[in-house]
Amino acid sequence: MAFRSPVPDYLDEIVESLADDTNGAVADYIPELAQADPDRFAVALTTVDGRTYSAGDDDVEFSIQSISKPFAYAAALTDLGLDRVLDKVGVEPSGEAFNELSLEGESHRPMNPMINAGAITTHHLVGGPDCDPDERVQRVVRVFSALAGRELRIDDAVCRSELETADRNLALAHMLRSHGILAGDAAQVVRGYTEQCSILVTVRDLAVMGATLAKGGVQPVTGDAVVEPWVARQVLGVMTACGMYNGAGEWLTAVGIPAKSGVAGGILGALPAQVGIGVFSPRLDRNGNSVRGLRTCRRLSADMGLHLMEAEALGAGALRSVHPGTLPDVGEVLVYELQGIIQFRGAETVLRELEGASESGQPVVFDLARVPGLNDVGRRMILEAMRRLLLADRRVFLVDPDGVLPDPDVGDGRRPEIVPSASSTDRSH
Amino acid sequence: MAFRSPVPDYLDEIVESLADDTNGAVADYIPELAQADPDRFAVALTTVDGRTYSAGDDDVEFSIQSISKPFAYAAALTDLGLDRVLDKVGVEPSGEAFNELSLEGESHRPMNPMINAGAITTHHLVGGPDCDPDERVQRVVRVFSALAGRELRIDDAVCRSELETADRNLALAHMLRSHGILAGDAAQVVRGYTEQCSILVTVRDLAVMGATLAKGGVQPVTGDAVVEPWVARQVLGVMTACGMYNGAGEWLTAVGIPAKSGVAGGILGALPAQVGIGVFSPRLDRNGNSVRGLRTCRRLSADMGLHLMEAEALGAGALRSVHPGTLPDVGEVLVYELQGIIQFRGAETVLRELEGASESGQPVVFDLARVPGLNDVGRRMILEAMRRLLLADRRVFLVDPDGVLPDPDVGDGRRPEIVPSASSTDRSH
Amino acid sequence: MAFRSPVPDYLDEIVESLADDTNGAVADYIPELAQADPDRFAVALTTVDGRTYSAGDDDVEFSIQSISKPFAYAAALTDLGLDRVLDKVGVEPSGEAFNELSLEGESHRPMNPMINAGAITTHHLVGGPDCDPDERVQRVVRVFSALAGRELRIDDAVCRSELETADRNLALAHMLRSHGILAGDAAQVVRGYTEQCSILVTVRDLAVMGATLAKGGVQPVTGDAVVEPWVARQVLGVMTACGMYNGAGEWLTAVGIPAKSGVAGGILGALPAQVGIGVFSPRLDRNGNSVRGLRTCRRLSADMGLHLMEAEALGAGALRSVHPGTLPDVGEVLVYELQGIIQFRGAETVLRELEGASESGQPVVFDLARVPGLNDVGRRMILEAMRRLLLADRRVFLVDPDGVLPDPDVGDGRRPEIVPSASSTDRSH
Amino acid sequence: MAFRSPVPDYLDEIVESLADDTNGAVADYIPELAQADPDRFAVALTTVDGRTYSAGDDDVEFSIQSISKPFAYAAALTDLGLDRVLDKVGVEPSGEAFNELSLEGESHRPMNPMINAGAITTHHLVGGPDCDPDERVQRVVRVFSALAGRELRIDDAVCRSELETADRNLALAHMLRSHGILAGDAAQVVRGYTEQCSILVTVRDLAVMGATLAKGGVQPVTGDAVVEPWVARQVLGVMTACGMYNGAGEWLTAVGIPAKSGVAGGILGALPAQVGIGVFSPRLDRNGNSVRGLRTCRRLSADMGLHLMEAEALGAGALRSVHPGTLPDVGEVLVYELQGIIQFRGAETVLRELEGASESGQPVVFDLARVPGLNDVGRRMILEAMRRLLLADRRVFLVDPDGVLPDPDVGDGRRPEIVPSASSTDRSH
Repeated sequence: MAFRSPVPDYLDEIVESLADDTNGAVADYIPELAQADPDRFAVALTTVDGRTYSAGDDDVEFSIQSISKPFAYAAALTDLGLDRVLDKVGVEPSGEAFNELSLEGESHRPMNPMINAGAITTHHLVGGPDCDPDERVQRVVRVFSALAGRELRIDDAVCRSELETADRNLALAHMLRSHGILAGDAAQVVRGYTEQCSILVTVRDLAVMGATLAKGGVQPVTGDAVVEPWVARQVLGVMTACGMYNGAGEWLTAVGIPAKSGVAGGILGALPAQVGIGVFSPRLDRNGNSVRGLRTCRRLSADMGLHLMEAEALGAGALRSVHPGTLPDVGEVLVYELQGIIQFRGAETVLRELEGASESGQPVVFDLARVPGLNDVGRRMILEAMRRLLLADRRVFLVDPDGVLPDPDVGDGRRPEIVPSASSTDRSH
Repeated sequence: MAFRSPVPDYLDEIVESLADDTNGAVADYIPELAQADPDRFAVALTTVDGRTYSAGDDDVEFSIQSISKPFAYAAALTDLGLDRVLDKVGVEPSGEAFNELSLEGESHRPMNPMINAGAITTHHLVGGPDCDPDERVQRVVRVFSALAGRELRIDDAVCRSELETADRNLALAHMLRSHGILAGDAAQVVRGYTEQCSILVTVRDLAVMGATLAKGGVQPVTGDAVVEPWVARQVLGVMTACGMYNGAGEWLTAVGIPAKSGVAGGILGALPAQVGIGVFSPRLDRNGNSVRGLRTCRRLSADMGLHLMEAEALGAGALRSVHPGTLPDVGEVLVYELQGIIQFRGAETVLRELEGASESGQPVVFDLARVPGLNDVGRRMILEAMRRLLLADRRVFLVDPDGVLPDPDVGDGRRPEIVPSASSTDRSH
Repeated sequence: MAFRSPVPDYLDEIVESLADDTNGAVADYIPELAQADPDRFAVALTTVDGRTYSAGDDDVEFSIQSISKPFAYAAALTDLGLDRVLDKVGVEPSGEAFNELSLEGESHRPMNPMINAGAITTHHLVGGPDCDPDERVQRVVRVFSALAGRELRIDDAVCRSELETADRNLALAHMLRSHGILAGDAAQVVRGYTEQCSILVTVRDLAVMGATLAKGGVQPVTGDAVVEPWVARQVLGVMTACGMYNGAGEWLTAVGIPAKSGVAGGILGALPAQVGIGVFSPRLDRNGNSVRGLRTCRRLSADMGLHLMEAEALGAGALRSVHPGTLPDVGEVLVYELQGIIQFRGAETVLRELEGASESGQPVVFDLARVPGLNDVGRRMILEAMRRLLLADRRVFLVDPDGVLPDPDVGDGRRPEIVPSASSTDRSH
Repeated sequence: MAFRSPVPDYLDEIVESLADDTNGAVADYIPELAQADPDRFAVALTTVDGRTYSAGDDDVEFSIQSISKPFAYAAALTDLGLDRVLDKVGVEPSGEAFNELSLEGESHRPMNPMINAGAITTHHLVGGPDCDPDERVQRVVRVFSALAGRELRIDDAVCRSELETADRNLALAHMLRSHGILAGDAAQVVRGYTEQCSILVTVRDLAVMGATLAKGGVQPVTGDAVVEPWVARQVLGVMTACGMYNGAGEWLTAVGIPAKSGVAGGILGALPAQVGIGVFSPRLDRNGNSVRGLRTCRRLSADMGLHLMEAEALGAGALRSVHPGTLPDVGEVLVYELQGIIQFRGAETVLRELEGASESGQPVVFDLARVPGLNDVGRRMILEAMRRLLLADRRVFLVDPDGVLPDPDVGDGRRPEIVPSASSTDRSH
């Protein structure tokens, strides 16, 4: 019998246990959405390593709707830069319903890109001011496809159906025009925005797209850097502050996963450095969020420890040991054996230990054999430690079999000496 | 020359470079606060491992003021449990100034514990309904002292001075009483709350207290579990949603550190699983936040990658290698060598690999020698993997020199066989 | 030398004394309005008797703009009745700027017909649901012309200019459509509403139109009952509550004249039973009201006692005297000599006196020779008094040389006996 | 059989027909109020001539509660003048519930004196800044008694009962203190305000007090000028804008009587120059207004034409006739026979006629025999007409048997010649 991962079993269990919940109602203000099969239910989860798990109706396509907002925001940030986007759209929670104006006092900016006024403005920013409306939609589809790792397409029937009842969005577009926030033709912008909302996805697509944000913009399957790290961080921050229409605080405390829901019943989740999540179930609560979708997110957070504020079991140190050792042709050395990913916190423990050490003058070995990676701060701090040791006329060696610290220039051209390993002379650990 | 950590140098540089910024003004509505030396400036940073770095006037005591709010909230959650606290105080951003009522529509709950109405209510919850007012204050001082790791005390002069201009808080207390949210005598509750606000701290205290929240409630120096992990998570979540008076979204995107400021010029920061931060500089901007304090937080976030949404360099896998090996008296085995802290994401990579492996029937070795720790989900997932292998009649061995997986019962009484190590037969890595 | 009324002199003096006030700025968001001569200034005043006084540029035409709102409301009330209009537009002050949505909570009705959302809705109600857009505009022009007593026309250049920057109104129209308040095509309704706003008037037109409202809907020059009394009352009430954008209370206390201003610089005033007022001066304050127009209204109110709450010198009684008299062929009678217009209050004094009189059984004479008129309540009360006297077998006579009490049926077919006069036997008054 | 006025019958009919309406509930938040007999029902109406009619439980005393607000406002205006009162309390409708803060943006003034925050502030203004709290209450009782024409007294039991649940008012007082609006001790001011609210009145008192406002401040029974005309006008204006908690516009259009309601079930009405109204029925609707009280006001407005915007039947002119006549020793004259009360409008008709007359040089007679009175503007305009005639060397005579135009100095010392009457030579009218 082959080994079977418990993760799919777990997702199956969620789908099964929540299937009975038929609360809520399918969105009925758009005829095409009203025809959705209310019993559809699917969940998917993609790790930042690129593995996707799913359960339920994971191959059913549905229109992305408002879940398009964070991704279009990512595209606009990429195309225009942060400042030009912030000129037109804020980042503050609005405390109001998604289709209200919520313009900020003096600037008349929409409060954030997750409400319709902000999303319409954001759509129009994609591709820059000279972008043709059709090109803009194509650019949106292209970015979304890159995030999902497959060619996505627009559901024309949904789009047409929504355009028939687009008065609210037309109202917003005209109001934005009147405040000088939106420059394009109101009807054309709304058409483009509606096409963006009509892009079809599955829960697997959403999970992969979310995982891309969670991985700092790197698509975990294709490996493409679809958006830059600052863009992913900005999008996740705005999702956290403004993503779930009502109750940002309740969501942040009880679930703790940056998220966005859509009126077709989809929910996107993305936990930095961990996972992307996609859920689909068309019945919505009064706030317009998928009933089973919300419950699924709560289960994943509670069962999996997937929560922004989770700090459990992280006390273990990055410095595995400091021990005497020997190097051929060098003699006695002091070995600093690191472990785990080295961020600020890990590097700090190494620096602290170095500081406390006696001024022996002994050569120092940094053993990174158990280190899978360093982030930018971790790398800079370790190099700075080496620089200071070198300045004090200490010899510095580096054990780095996996090459996690390539090109170890400490800043002034000097580098540690690379050695394959250091033999320990203290066998006590 | 002794090695000197660059972290203090970095903090010194921050203090030096921002010292020139004399924008803002010392709070003047409380006579005692108005007398603060506006040039004071200090910053401290405590890692979840318990090391505190600081620079500037790091031994100057100042009144904690509104920074007491998250800690009193932690005390109330501890004393009454989540539901009874949520009955009286919400968790949503108010979008209004700190001293406005901001009561929720039907419940009349204050919107959150970070505005004064919510903080007064929260103070009164500490110790439960039968707690004597004096006992309540003592309990607050005790909890705060436990968080800081030293005996804190109340500044009576500040307290008296604030009580002379306590009309706003008295107004809030009476209004809360009129809505049945507050049961105690209004003047007495305001006195107790004002005493809470008058507790004296240094930036080092704040950094340690923040680090306690960042470490799931475990004081990183004393090792005491001052509050439970869910309490720390709830407090951090509310700080994120409601901590910085205006501009929650701007703070969340641009800085990304759960934080709280006080009118005496203090700022508390706490990044889950990383650090606690304390800053002190009495000059405030129009929103009542310390001018240099805000700039310091921005520098720390930008320079140190201290940001909730940071996902950089975390792609490295938990599964260092899978290779054939041999065990004495067993023979050929398949070794799964793990590395780093194992959370959901790490465990998942192991499960995935197991799933993909051929049904060889070979014994399996889990080598945790490079694993500094597992969180609860990681532990459960690894044990589940073992259980499934045992169910399939595979032999399962565990290498765990540091005892990071103690008592490895897979759920039905069975356990992996403990071995000191497995010799690799594949030398290619 | 001919006698010259001081009223024109007074108006001339106002125009002269306020001419220096060049504060404010001509509305610049509509190109055509921006070209207005800012120095234009005119005032007109029409009594309910139909005399119009004016001063300054009283023959300059300007677009009526928002002053069209009360008159279109009158037209809609006439065409649909009160209930059907109230279904779609409320009567409450909005406390917000004129171009905001201000929709009521559940009904989504615009708060009142004086804000743009309500005015757009009101325009569409004119002529009823089956009215063709062009017919609707023609109906508006026709009603306005009947109110002004001359053929008014639309300024096509202003209309075209406004339609070029009609985004706010288009936004409102679409939003109203989305809430089911507005049924027509958004662009078409906005065009019709803009045509309504582009109707050209002079201050003399406005004064006459206002006087028509002040006279219960009767055009004081032509004598036509343009709208019914309840319509005039409803319009005046809404103008009082919602007419001046900000500061309804300040206007009501300090000026006390129901009023409406327009962005072209016009102001309409209408004091029930007294006068209509028109002012024109294009420079606007920050609230969009004509600076000199407001000051003119304040002067008129203060100098002329034109104020809704004015109660000065009204203590004089409706009952001039009760005295013994004689009638040929009848003998001794008791004469009740009335004076002034008999409303509730006046009739009441007569009834009171009758009640106090001794039960002499003497015939009673109602002498209305000094009564210029009775309102409906006054008429009914006097007839009821006669009825009761007749029931008590008293003879009742009526002196009514001007026929102010035509057809004096007391309700059961009986009537007082008409006599030309009664000679007084008591010469003491 | 004595004549019986139909007015009492009419009020009896109202009481009888509305007695069945047992909707609403007695206010229960104050124990003493909760004990009120819910079936009590009374209505009273006082004319500006001083006659009071009443029906139902017209001798039952109840606490005045919020109806004290306009009268205390009148007292404060009298004691401090308009500007100093406006410094502390605004005049704008708040759009919020009566017990909310509703402070204006920059000034922090309460929005108006009809909400509790404004009423507490107003109470404290009575008597000026140096007034002792007890003296202040005595001054309030004294002013109210003067308005009612009898000694009113405080219900101590109601006052004590309200003080036990005074948290909202204490909250407001502290908040007002914190904004520098209120200077006194919060608890003391609330006690004084609560005493003010506990003054006992009957519907007859309210009707008389209202009639005093309606008569420009002159108590219609005692003839005392209790407050100045501008005070009465200001109070009536504020009642109109802010008196009925919700729905100022609905009240203004549908009822049209400045009014104020109290939580004990009272309603005060006052129609300028017409009547004061008092109603009492303890069952309240959700807005805190007496259910039967509101219906009574609606009936009175509809049946009696008692409406601010009423303009019916007022077309009749002030100029009864212009005819040739003769004066002994003078010869042929032109007689202008006036009628009714002469306000601006009436005087204007005379001036207009004078202007149109041929330049005959004939002497002019102003016959005021049918004029019961002139207001200030009317008086000034008639005198100005005389002045201009005298300037043109016309002889001017005055017939004024009732002395309605005493001391007819036209401004430069000249006066018309007084004559007893002028014989008409034109018998056609």
